[in-house]
Amino acid sequence: MSVLIVGSTALDSIKTPKAENPRLLGGSASHAAVAASFFSPVKLVGVVGDDFPRRYIQLYKRHRIDLEGLQMLPGKTFHWSGEYELNMNNRRTLLTELGVFETFTPTLPKAHQGSEFVLLANIAPSLQSHVLNQTRRPRFVIADTMDLWLNIALADLLALIKRLDAFVLNDSEAHQLTKEDNVFAAMKKIHRLGPKYVVIKKGSHGSILSGPKGFFICPAYPLHKVVDPTGAGDSFVGGMIGCLATARGSIDDNIRRAMIYGSVVASYCCEGFGLTRTTRVKRSDIEQRVKELERLTRF
Amino acid sequence: MSVLIVGSTALDSIKTPKAENPRLLGGSASHAAVAASFFSPVKLVGVVGDDFPRRYIQLYKRHRIDLEGLQMLPGKTFHWSGEYELNMNNRRTLLTELGVFETFTPTLPKAHQGSEFVLLANIAPSLQSHVLNQTRRPRFVIADTMDLWLNIALADLLALIKRLDAFVLNDSEAHQLTKEDNVFAAMKKIHRLGPKYVVIKKGSHGSILSGPKGFFICPAYPLHKVVDPTGAGDSFVGGMIGCLATARGSIDDNIRRAMIYGSVVASYCCEGFGLTRTTRVKRSDIEQRVKELERLTRF
Repeated sequence: MSVLIVGSTALDSIKTPKAENPRLLGGSASHAAVAASFFSPVKLVGVVGDDFPRRYIQLYKRHRIDLEGLQMLPGKTFHWSGEYELNMNNRRTLLTELGVFETFTPTLPKAHQGSEFVLLANIAPSLQSHVLNQTRRPRFVIADTMDLWLNIALADLLALIKRLDAFVLNDSEAHQLTKEDNVFAAMKKIHRLGPKYVVIKKGSHGSILSGPKGFFICPAYPLHKVVDPTGAGDSFVGGMIGCLATARGSIDDNIRRAMIYGSVVASYCCEGFGLTRTTRVKRSDIEQRVKELERLTRF
Repeated sequence: MSVLIVGSTALDSIKTPKAENPRLLGGSASHAAVAASFFSPVKLVGVVGDDFPRRYIQLYKRHRIDLEGLQMLPGKTFHWSGEYELNMNNRRTLLTELGVFETFTPTLPKAHQGSEFVLLANIAPSLQSHVLNQTRRPRFVIADTMDLWLNIALADLLALIKRLDAFVLNDSEAHQLTKEDNVFAAMKKIHRLGPKYVVIKKGSHGSILSGPKGFFICPAYPLHKVVDPTGAGDSFVGGMIGCLATARGSIDDNIRRAMIYGSVVASYCCEGFGLTRTTRVKRSDIEQRVKELERLTRF
């Protein structure tokens, strides 16, 4: 089963005290699509400008990502520029140029409308809903978001959340949305907004699932060095839905293991700037870290 | 096998926006001793003043804690007073009265000197070393600490760490000690200071073990409401060593499961002020949460 992924497709310029990395391939949909591609065929929906480097189209293609839904418009590709401090924990946005993204309206090619697994990666919730409106009864819809939309488009986001099977957000966003400090109490409140599955991302502390079979405490893979965490959350949810789309059995049967796979792809994402490390990963590398996570959590 | 526990024995007055809880039984050794008592006999070493309530002596006795090493001196019991904010996350110390603790020199009764399992719960590292000096080749020595000793007694602490089998500290203390942001890199540096086992506590995010068999990612039990986290870390390490002291096989074979048991006792500790919840727990309650943690982490 293939996965439909909509989100941002961007160029990221990432500065650290030691290096500059101009115009890396980035954006929520790029990270999620590459992550999902390890497990299932992917259909990407997004927009880029006419400055979008040809080598990034090639990169998508090497991951067998279907680009029929990727619009290429006259103008500039969405460009984000940020700077990390020495400890890699604090990130500061230097520049955001929306470019062709400013007027982007995602239109699903006919072949995409029957997609059974849909990932609405982080973009404006109105666009996420717009994509969902064009699909026909997908089997599983999962969405991610960011604090920006909680601040400037909360009504749109709440309207979207109602329609989701699964909603993914990080712990500070969950707190912002529910006014609950306790993550488990926050998840309970988020269920009441609609989704059957709620996933809270906690960065290096892993993630937590709340679903019909109760909670699942999902570990992060232990990394001794984080080079660039940009896109880790997108990689996590991308790996997760890629896994779900190809697993046999029910979502309930597979969602825990899918989170583990997502967690492993996210760990590779953190080990290089942009997608530079993830794109060098082999399926066997992923399986090895999954096995390690089994050993690391057994008692 | 019994466990020898030295640490503070105190009266804690804990204020929250909703309640005042004056002169609860507290202190690192009290929490650790009650936690360990669920699994093994405990010998407590500490000091109290002549104001120490008789009911707390009874409480220790109900947990079959050997009090031969508990000195009762003329003067006041160590008294700590703190206030929590509404969200229970931020704690502010209002008052610290050392009382008889100021001149405390722990002396081990003869019967305690051959103890095979020794927990040096959080007190000044010079006192922890002083206790260790009085023991005869214990099989397993574990110590906890706090940021205060990193600030005012670092040399003493480093001298102690060299002599430990296991060292337990929280993530911010590990960062302070090693100047490493990354918790796995920090653990590697702490091994070089001496201990074979390093355990980093991360509060509601669980804990991590680094030992000869690699890492273990230990979950925290999911709590929907934290009433009072005071003593949770002490309960964790107390439960852990209590478990180790009675388990068959090597430390390596048992330390993961011992951490799970410690984590569960710590979860009960957080559900009431001081020791009020922990002292109502039955062994069967603990086993139930251990089983739940098995289910919550399986994938």
